[in-house]
Amino acid sequence: MSARLYGVVIDSRDPPALARFWAQVLAFPIVFEEPDEVVVARDDDTYPALIFVPVPETKSVKNRLHLDLAPDDRDREVARLLALGATRAEVGQGPDVSWVVLADPEGNEFCVLSTREGGV
Amino acid sequence: MSARLYGVVIDSRDPPALARFWAQVLAFPIVFEEPDEVVVARDDDTYPALIFVPVPETKSVKNRLHLDLAPDDRDREVARLLALGATRAEVGQGPDVSWVVLADPEGNEFCVLSTREGGV
Repeated sequence: MSARLYGVVIDSRDPPALARFWAQVLAFPIVFEEPDEVVVARDDDTYPALIFVPVPETKSVKNRLHLDLAPDDRDREVARLLALGATRAEVGQGPDVSWVVLADPEGNEFCVLSTREGGV
Repeated sequence: MSARLYGVVIDSRDPPALARFWAQVLAFPIVFEEPDEVVVARDDDTYPALIFVPVPETKSVKNRLHLDLAPDDRDREVARLLALGATRAEVGQGPDVSWVVLADPEGNEFCVLSTREGGV
């Protein structure tokens, strides 16, 4: 007996806007949208969804959970994400790590791995 | 161009212990284990991994990201998860929601959805 990982819920000040950012990051469509929930998921439902829900509070500390992205080309992907509205983030990662730490428009940290790390 | 969701990184006081809890929750194996990183992932690498990394700080506020689980049977799954070391959590969800809020052994909130919500 086990449970399937249905998705990652992301508390949001502006769920529609944050969902649109992540839909572009992952190239997934918005599959559900109501005032209290916006869902970004792969069409075939074979991958966990990102579920954006409204909360009144803003982010206050470094997130204890964050997403890691595996790009085809790290530096090109970082440039694309910065153009979409991501910003560079400093979480004490040091200058010599192989990944790049960014934050989404609401400040949620995430990492863009090197191609090697994310390669399959 | 897009990036693949490689995984969800979870800051941990005790990565080996927390990884073992989540490996049992999802029935995924531990596919990598070093002092600075423990990875729980489906063998075929078709699903995002859970990546446990050590941090010195404990959880201080409600997490801004949390996992949603889709069970076959919600109440049986909740009983199984409580036996594994989860605890019930109160995040203002109210008495009438269809999901159950739990916390993992380090206090990270997660939800067990009703079968209907998670059904595919």
